[in-house]
Amino acid sequence: MTTTPKKIRLGAFIQDAGHHIAAWRLPSAPEGAGMNFEHYAQLAQRAEQAKFDMVFLGDQMTFQYEEDEHIGRTTRTVTFEPLTLLSALAVNTRRIGLVATASTSYNEPFNVARKFASLDHISHGRAGWNVVTSWTQGEARNFNLDQVIEHGLRYRRAREFVDVVTGLWDSWEDDALLQDKESGLFFDPGRLHVLAHQGEFFKVRGPLNIARPPQGYPVVVQAGSSADGQQLAAETAEVIFTAQRSLEEAQAFYRSVKSQMQGYGRHPDDLKIMPGVFPVVGESEAHAKEKFQQLQELVHPEIGWPILARHLGGFDLSSYPLDGPVPDLPLTQGNQSRQKLLIDFARRENLTVRQLYWHVTGTRGHWAIFGTAEQIADQLQERFEQGGADGFNIMAPWLPGGLFEFIDHVVPVLQRRGLFRTAYEGATLRENLGLRRPANRHAAGQERA
Amino acid sequence: MTTTPKKIRLGAFIQDAGHHIAAWRLPSAPEGAGMNFEHYAQLAQRAEQAKFDMVFLGDQMTFQYEEDEHIGRTTRTVTFEPLTLLSALAVNTRRIGLVATASTSYNEPFNVARKFASLDHISHGRAGWNVVTSWTQGEARNFNLDQVIEHGLRYRRAREFVDVVTGLWDSWEDDALLQDKESGLFFDPGRLHVLAHQGEFFKVRGPLNIARPPQGYPVVVQAGSSADGQQLAAETAEVIFTAQRSLEEAQAFYRSVKSQMQGYGRHPDDLKIMPGVFPVVGESEAHAKEKFQQLQELVHPEIGWPILARHLGGFDLSSYPLDGPVPDLPLTQGNQSRQKLLIDFARRENLTVRQLYWHVTGTRGHWAIFGTAEQIADQLQERFEQGGADGFNIMAPWLPGGLFEFIDHVVPVLQRRGLFRTAYEGATLRENLGLRRPANRHAAGQERA
Repeated sequence: MTTTPKKIRLGAFIQDAGHHIAAWRLPSAPEGAGMNFEHYAQLAQRAEQAKFDMVFLGDQMTFQYEEDEHIGRTTRTVTFEPLTLLSALAVNTRRIGLVATASTSYNEPFNVARKFASLDHISHGRAGWNVVTSWTQGEARNFNLDQVIEHGLRYRRAREFVDVVTGLWDSWEDDALLQDKESGLFFDPGRLHVLAHQGEFFKVRGPLNIARPPQGYPVVVQAGSSADGQQLAAETAEVIFTAQRSLEEAQAFYRSVKSQMQGYGRHPDDLKIMPGVFPVVGESEAHAKEKFQQLQELVHPEIGWPILARHLGGFDLSSYPLDGPVPDLPLTQGNQSRQKLLIDFARRENLTVRQLYWHVTGTRGHWAIFGTAEQIADQLQERFEQGGADGFNIMAPWLPGGLFEFIDHVVPVLQRRGLFRTAYEGATLRENLGLRRPANRHAAGQERA
Repeated sequence: MTTTPKKIRLGAFIQDAGHHIAAWRLPSAPEGAGMNFEHYAQLAQRAEQAKFDMVFLGDQMTFQYEEDEHIGRTTRTVTFEPLTLLSALAVNTRRIGLVATASTSYNEPFNVARKFASLDHISHGRAGWNVVTSWTQGEARNFNLDQVIEHGLRYRRAREFVDVVTGLWDSWEDDALLQDKESGLFFDPGRLHVLAHQGEFFKVRGPLNIARPPQGYPVVVQAGSSADGQQLAAETAEVIFTAQRSLEEAQAFYRSVKSQMQGYGRHPDDLKIMPGVFPVVGESEAHAKEKFQQLQELVHPEIGWPILARHLGGFDLSSYPLDGPVPDLPLTQGNQSRQKLLIDFARRENLTVRQLYWHVTGTRGHWAIFGTAEQIADQLQERFEQGGADGFNIMAPWLPGGLFEFIDHVVPVLQRRGLFRTAYEGATLRENLGLRRPANRHAAGQERA
């Protein structure tokens, strides 16, 4: 029941009207965007028909940008809570994996372990947990703090959090529930284990009050790419969702993480690296770029300016002519190297203020591919075969149309080339990804019995 | 769209194989009990066909009794997490209310506000939140503590928690999402509100990152009956799930809570009191008692003894003959008056050890009614008409059969007497319960505009 190793894995990162910030303004955009359940159900069902490995939901426990509270120009403000949404989608789908983001910073491990175990049972083995730390000021302020938790501390907490969660998932051995009506024994106490965790951040006795997840553990996903993030992933992740634009960057990241895994006694195949891809399918490359440009035109200056300002250390260009050149700017205290790169880029390309904000609002820092289905498939194939990726998380610029175009045009090309499945290999997300089912830590001896 | 005030409200408290501790041993009990999703879906669908107001899920964030870790004789150990379960059931049902318990002791208000808002959107206005405080040692130990939080402190935290949650539900006014594709304004910043709560326990800025719930607020339910619990309910609850056995106790509780409401400027009709009922339907009262006795016989002594010991201040009767008389017992430090009542009862009724544990394992302290459908309807009608209840939370001893018998036999009698609906009056739980939709605190001025 494992997949052929040479197949590309595909995820559909679904988010309101799409990953482009102005996508909700398209005539075809769904009513209500991120608050439209039928929209999400349709996306998940179409991705399942196309044999995607998973749908993926991001998460922040805050209104995304405080500036926008006063502007009102984005849909990235209201949406469903991911675990409740995926539990509902579990009923609307049968085979596709269901991956939700949940923070280790403002949750308790007992609650997270339980919810993902519950989703795994409801979906009969299709749950995945995207482990993140929360780095935004908005989230800190919703959880009793004034300031974001410091980076190193967040990652130490995340590391211990994952340990507690997986420990709780091992509370019950797989065959602990005897359900022997005759003798009256519902479970075997010898196959129930108290965790009794005591660490730097958490003290959790257990056991978890839900049976072991069908997958053993729901698939552990991670998205961090800092040094701390890479280390956490190398040690614990089974899927990485990442962002590298060039093949060289992607290869370097891929090599770095996979080589670190060996230090933790893990095989490189135990982790699938799936960079985000922002695809625009057209009849030609020029046509695809034209379609993208139509989206860009929908970015209102009032949202373009503050997003650009965040990339320029707070510098506001709203008093300069929109279609005039980017002015000379002082470097601020923030991330100077990034600001300088952006200004140098504007100079070199001779960009206007409007074009510069298009540059930063366009693809969210992810790898964008514009072209025909064949051209997009070529690029994915190259990155897959050249050691840059095990698969891709598809971030359609607009939804549902952008995902449907990828499914209708690019997926068949990948299938014809033998790079993508035409039928699900297994019943669980883990089986489809070709990942081992983790043995219960307490049952090692019994496996041979 | 409000219900006739004179109708009984009905909830179905659904829990694994039923509310009797040995129900899972019946030949008809579902495979897996609390881990069987199809079982829960069937219960919710049948309750909906019968026009129940709601299904109700209890919750504890722990293995219920530590003793049972070593015994293995109960199903009250593994089940779904309530919010994920109800989100899935929202897809399987269309009209029935979905009420889940969530603790104020070991959660954060931002997370709880968001999850119930999300369930309310997914279900199109059918969510309810049963607000509890966590009093078990097992829960404390799963959330970084050695000891349970003290009673008064728990209730102060609960009171502030409810304030923060309802405040967050008012983050967005009902009409804040303009979705004006033409102008590019997704929402009206003037109809978005920052909470900026700062209290004894919580500091939460907001706004909530989900639109205002369809019901304004999901229905607020409570289950506490201590003085602190009654006060919290009088101030904030819209439904109370409670446990009084006799009509007199029920009337006293009903009067006490409803009269306290006026001190908070609330009308008595703004809160529906729904005691738990443990019904057994038979062809006669004797036949119903016989059916119940068959369940009692399935209580294994190994689980009867420790449950009895908890009621006797820790005193273990396992070394005495099961079918011999209850021995003389010393009163321990615990709840002496309750121990004495129980021992006096055993003497008076001339009970054996086995009969005494049947007494405490049987109905979980709830009002049990044994009889024909007409007899059960008589009792419910009396309590409803004599000021003891606005409705009932049906705790079937065994599931699914016990609930189906109530639905097939008792519900039609109540309907014939004009005491229970034959069609849903409204689209939301709030409308069916006859509860007002709360206005947004920020929009009061605009309502008249």
